[in-house]
Amino acid sequence: MDFELTEEQRQFQAMARDFAASKMAPHAAEWDEQQIFPVDTLRELAELGLAGIYVREESGGSGLTRLDAAIIFEELAAACVSTAAYLSIHNMACWMVDSFGNDEQRARLLPKMLSCESFASYCLTEPGSGSDAASLRTRAVKDGNAAYILNGTKAFISGGGTSDVYVVMARTGGEGAGGISTFIVEKGTKGLSFGKKEKKLGWNSQPTAMVNLEDCVVPAENLLGNEGDGFKFAMKGLDGGRINIAACSLGGARASLEATRDYMQVRKQFGKSLSDFQALQFRFADMATELEAARLMVHRAAVSLDSGSPQATTHAAMAKRFATDIGFEVCNQALQLHGGYGYIKEYPIERFFRDVRVHQILEGTNEIMRLIIARNLLKA
Amino acid sequence: MDFELTEEQRQFQAMARDFAASKMAPHAAEWDEQQIFPVDTLRELAELGLAGIYVREESGGSGLTRLDAAIIFEELAAACVSTAAYLSIHNMACWMVDSFGNDEQRARLLPKMLSCESFASYCLTEPGSGSDAASLRTRAVKDGNAAYILNGTKAFISGGGTSDVYVVMARTGGEGAGGISTFIVEKGTKGLSFGKKEKKLGWNSQPTAMVNLEDCVVPAENLLGNEGDGFKFAMKGLDGGRINIAACSLGGARASLEATRDYMQVRKQFGKSLSDFQALQFRFADMATELEAARLMVHRAAVSLDSGSPQATTHAAMAKRFATDIGFEVCNQALQLHGGYGYIKEYPIERFFRDVRVHQILEGTNEIMRLIIARNLLKA
Amino acid sequence: MDFELTEEQRQFQAMARDFAASKMAPHAAEWDEQQIFPVDTLRELAELGLAGIYVREESGGSGLTRLDAAIIFEELAAACVSTAAYLSIHNMACWMVDSFGNDEQRARLLPKMLSCESFASYCLTEPGSGSDAASLRTRAVKDGNAAYILNGTKAFISGGGTSDVYVVMARTGGEGAGGISTFIVEKGTKGLSFGKKEKKLGWNSQPTAMVNLEDCVVPAENLLGNEGDGFKFAMKGLDGGRINIAACSLGGARASLEATRDYMQVRKQFGKSLSDFQALQFRFADMATELEAARLMVHRAAVSLDSGSPQATTHAAMAKRFATDIGFEVCNQALQLHGGYGYIKEYPIERFFRDVRVHQILEGTNEIMRLIIARNLLKA
Amino acid sequence: MDFELTEEQRQFQAMARDFAASKMAPHAAEWDEQQIFPVDTLRELAELGLAGIYVREESGGSGLTRLDAAIIFEELAAACVSTAAYLSIHNMACWMVDSFGNDEQRARLLPKMLSCESFASYCLTEPGSGSDAASLRTRAVKDGNAAYILNGTKAFISGGGTSDVYVVMARTGGEGAGGISTFIVEKGTKGLSFGKKEKKLGWNSQPTAMVNLEDCVVPAENLLGNEGDGFKFAMKGLDGGRINIAACSLGGARASLEATRDYMQVRKQFGKSLSDFQALQFRFADMATELEAARLMVHRAAVSLDSGSPQATTHAAMAKRFATDIGFEVCNQALQLHGGYGYIKEYPIERFFRDVRVHQILEGTNEIMRLIIARNLLKA
Repeated sequence: MDFELTEEQRQFQAMARDFAASKMAPHAAEWDEQQIFPVDTLRELAELGLAGIYVREESGGSGLTRLDAAIIFEELAAACVSTAAYLSIHNMACWMVDSFGNDEQRARLLPKMLSCESFASYCLTEPGSGSDAASLRTRAVKDGNAAYILNGTKAFISGGGTSDVYVVMARTGGEGAGGISTFIVEKGTKGLSFGKKEKKLGWNSQPTAMVNLEDCVVPAENLLGNEGDGFKFAMKGLDGGRINIAACSLGGARASLEATRDYMQVRKQFGKSLSDFQALQFRFADMATELEAARLMVHRAAVSLDSGSPQATTHAAMAKRFATDIGFEVCNQALQLHGGYGYIKEYPIERFFRDVRVHQILEGTNEIMRLIIARNLLKA
Repeated sequence: MDFELTEEQRQFQAMARDFAASKMAPHAAEWDEQQIFPVDTLRELAELGLAGIYVREESGGSGLTRLDAAIIFEELAAACVSTAAYLSIHNMACWMVDSFGNDEQRARLLPKMLSCESFASYCLTEPGSGSDAASLRTRAVKDGNAAYILNGTKAFISGGGTSDVYVVMARTGGEGAGGISTFIVEKGTKGLSFGKKEKKLGWNSQPTAMVNLEDCVVPAENLLGNEGDGFKFAMKGLDGGRINIAACSLGGARASLEATRDYMQVRKQFGKSLSDFQALQFRFADMATELEAARLMVHRAAVSLDSGSPQATTHAAMAKRFATDIGFEVCNQALQLHGGYGYIKEYPIERFFRDVRVHQILEGTNEIMRLIIARNLLKA
Repeated sequence: MDFELTEEQRQFQAMARDFAASKMAPHAAEWDEQQIFPVDTLRELAELGLAGIYVREESGGSGLTRLDAAIIFEELAAACVSTAAYLSIHNMACWMVDSFGNDEQRARLLPKMLSCESFASYCLTEPGSGSDAASLRTRAVKDGNAAYILNGTKAFISGGGTSDVYVVMARTGGEGAGGISTFIVEKGTKGLSFGKKEKKLGWNSQPTAMVNLEDCVVPAENLLGNEGDGFKFAMKGLDGGRINIAACSLGGARASLEATRDYMQVRKQFGKSLSDFQALQFRFADMATELEAARLMVHRAAVSLDSGSPQATTHAAMAKRFATDIGFEVCNQALQLHGGYGYIKEYPIERFFRDVRVHQILEGTNEIMRLIIARNLLKA
Repeated sequence: MDFELTEEQRQFQAMARDFAASKMAPHAAEWDEQQIFPVDTLRELAELGLAGIYVREESGGSGLTRLDAAIIFEELAAACVSTAAYLSIHNMACWMVDSFGNDEQRARLLPKMLSCESFASYCLTEPGSGSDAASLRTRAVKDGNAAYILNGTKAFISGGGTSDVYVVMARTGGEGAGGISTFIVEKGTKGLSFGKKEKKLGWNSQPTAMVNLEDCVVPAENLLGNEGDGFKFAMKGLDGGRINIAACSLGGARASLEATRDYMQVRKQFGKSLSDFQALQFRFADMATELEAARLMVHRAAVSLDSGSPQATTHAAMAKRFATDIGFEVCNQALQLHGGYGYIKEYPIERFFRDVRVHQILEGTNEIMRLIIARNLLKA
């Protein structure tokens, strides 16, 4: 066993950390408060190869591993969870095009996606089907050989209204997972429209909206893979997506923990530093310990996915459940240890607390993670 | 033992509930989002006698008990935690004037306070002294017989900048609790100024700001009680204040729980209502059970305070610690059970989640509650 | 509301406490280690009226309330959880005979039961039906008018083999709860036999065994109430039984907490008493706070049952779930705070830890409690 | 990073598992109940090289790593936690002789220790110094050049009275850690006697007793290293000892989890398997997830120790705290999920529950672990 980063991993970890510290952290509060989608920053990240971290090099990506991605997303999220998380979704979409698309689709779509000239959204959830994703009702009906007509509504779409490329799961066949296909729907397509921008607790640097498809004509060459492959593609995307989101929780929690350490060292009460109070020391020790455990779970899941382990889905679900729960709890305790200063926007803690909270809900709620884990471990 | 409300209590409970539902709930989201201090609503509440719930009738108050107050604040908080909590602070200030003031002060100050013509703030915390309140550094130096000159800064003051009456703890004597006195500082006093309005995670319907006292000349008749009584007064105020804040947590949590029950009954996934999923049933049962326990703790503490029990301070600290922790956890689980809908502002859950969070921090952090409890129980 | 004990309640609380301290506590370790069922002590308790605490006075009982019983069981359990818990089961059986029996049955059975000349067992659980009690398979077939023939096996029966009176739930009718009847089966009845005495983690002062019924001929006059009433009787018994068991958890936990307080005050490490370490103070404060909440829940449930509240079953389930979970956790933390001394039998903590543990499992597991609570609160 | 065992590791993992299943598991209940120290079994384990797993090959040991040891102890503990844990202490003692002894000591002591012809005990704790180990009061006074006279008492000594070799920390110098030296005290030494065998909650296959040293004459050649090195040696031993104990918690918890999985698959209630109940599935998923996290923490700490990482002590403390807490909680939930069957000795769960509990207390309590972690992370 080996728990150390390679020299190369340390290098791009440092690169990501530096970028995050200099180009993201100073703006994160403003992006949050004014709900700014930081297009230029994302394009700079793309220039560094971070829009297609695990897209193959021959497809124009960085050809790195899931573990590499987890390391990078943790660093970016330590500056701005919301922006890092959006980028992780964009990466997932790029990877799906690379993995499940054909040469023509890769050639047509990836260059712009990998430079963030076009932004991507992942459209699985619907108003009536969140956890029960396979029951989605968006329909895609073939219209001759040239096109599909899509009708339906997608909910809680990150990048909805802003993105240029929508990876849409729609039903071409019968009920259940086997009847679902994946389409690329491009902005400007007739019949594609968007709901109002949702007001949210956090994740404010990325817009969220419903995506409406009304007799939306999608060219047949925008079908990814074959009809009926869609749910499988969506779930494969999510295995990695869950690890990415979990890594973003690590980043937010680590930043909160480090801020808390610094605060405890300087803040004095009753004539001593907070770091001298035993009850607070114990709490800090537990936060640090659990965050370490969470990071190991995320890295192990990433390595399982990289190596094609049959346990990869279980490991990803475990990592997502554990790291996003711990991540929020660390932020929550960091807020408490900051006292009143944790509650005001002058300090970054309350933003991490809000941003990280949604990770327990999306990419499959943590309740769905438990179902996946139990199903895999309890099957007779 | 008797755990039932009296008929009279049920009546004003219903009155508070009706007011909250019709006059507060419809506006709470807007007050939050636009940071509106709802002056007119507070004056309507005052007309109902709720600005001086446990101020004596002969002083113009409602002459009710702490238990009555807890019942009322729970109801108001079920509509808007932040507004109910501000009102609870205003009540605490009114009670301090009634209890520790002289006839002249009562006659001069209370009528306007009890009608919310003037609003009150409680000024104990300073930038350098939160939990260690007795180390406060604001100084009041006697200037002849007629006045005191106050210098210092108070932090995180609810109503700061908006209130008309500031109940200020300042040091007239030596170090420690015994050197502190309580002053009424009125808006418009020379040398009284305010910091910028803090941007906060929640509690947005009440402004929060620093209160600066620079050579602020306060007439001697604005000293409450005697020199050196201030810390004792402040702590007596807080026993009740803690129960009030705990009651506000009950209200926010109960509203979140009821919303979750309704949501679970209508939201369907995998072909059944959320309320049919055993794992979610169990979680709901635990939320409801713990909220019941929290309410019992709050009511018991209130009765202890009403009856002058020697355990009142311990009971108040226990109730505050327990009910504000449980209250937040119920809101947090309610958010989770709402899935994506819990994270967006269209639903009230995320507001309750933000508002209730600060109750674990203020009126003495829950860490300070543990110190108080341990000190009282472990003294040899 | 009123949270105080009456003068009379304080008196029998003191009586129970004194008896427990002088007659039970000195022997509890021996009863545990040598698995002694303390017949004489139980008969002394019966002389004090504690075998039929809430049996009506006209039936020879003490005619007290469920709240009174909860107060008493807490005191007895503070000395020996296992013995107090057995007595609570015996009380439940006596109450069932008093409440559901006819005059003849009361006259015939109660005098000996109320003096503990005969001991009673409650026989609901079977090897295949624990949580799903209504699926029990023990059959009672009418044999003419004079008798029923019982066949089946009851599992985990407290007092099994030792008791003289077995209150047996058996199926006289069809499937489900409505087909169940309650019988009194007396020791010595042909066909009644017992499994080996179970070796258990705790609860060692009461024998536990299977009860086997093989063509066991029970006279028809030993049917309690009418055919088909049995499950209803069993559940009514359990509402009170759950409160009693919860009260026994309070007692074990309180004794552990008090022992911990004493230990913390005298045990020195690093030059100071354990009670001077902040992290341990905080933990102690939380233990004490949660135990207070648990006691309020138990007392409230008892009062609800006394007053015939429609919420009594919900309140009893909440109290049982909450107080037995908290009770164990307090014992578990007490063990931890005692360090190595908590792990050895020279100190009583490990016995409380073992005895209290089973309360989360029996009289309906805490999982069943959650089902009951959820069913009552979530029904549309 | 690499989270996989090597082929060689899989081999001795399988070897340990087979031995545990065939030679330990069938006897563990009896060893527990009758408090049997399984001398022959331990000698068989020694024949397999497991008495000196990480003793150097040139010293007669197996020359394996700490990671290898963790893998092995987990396997052995899955059969009998108590025996595995004793063996881990014996390994620690052997390693101390190998690492800190001189050639003569190694030659004289190790052959018998590595074959378990002689058993070893680690004697640090005293009645008055548990967590505060450096304050120990056992004195060793030099008597000429040939010997030391030891006086003092050691408490909670595993193997006390049974062991042949006692590794005793005693004070040769002034107060504090720097005045402590390490001695080998052999059974039969005049002045060496033992307290009564302690009755304990668990860990019953290893005897525990006080070790009394009264004018105990220890030859000078039994001093390990130099005077004053003792505390450093003791702590170095404990870094590995903590990882070993944590690995034993993994084993007990894993066995409990596997037993629970099997039980859930066959036990039926309400017409379906327990494994079909969602609330129980979720709980099982959490148990499994947390156990995975615990194992990663233990393995990472072992690798840190193997590689001489400066973070090894922190990692060992984190692993010990986390894995022993999780380990107990998994056993506790396994007990709950087994219902009544979890509480009786016919099933192994209650034994794992009892045995694993002490790991949160010894080799440094988990409170001391938090101090170590906080000290290392919060130092300015």
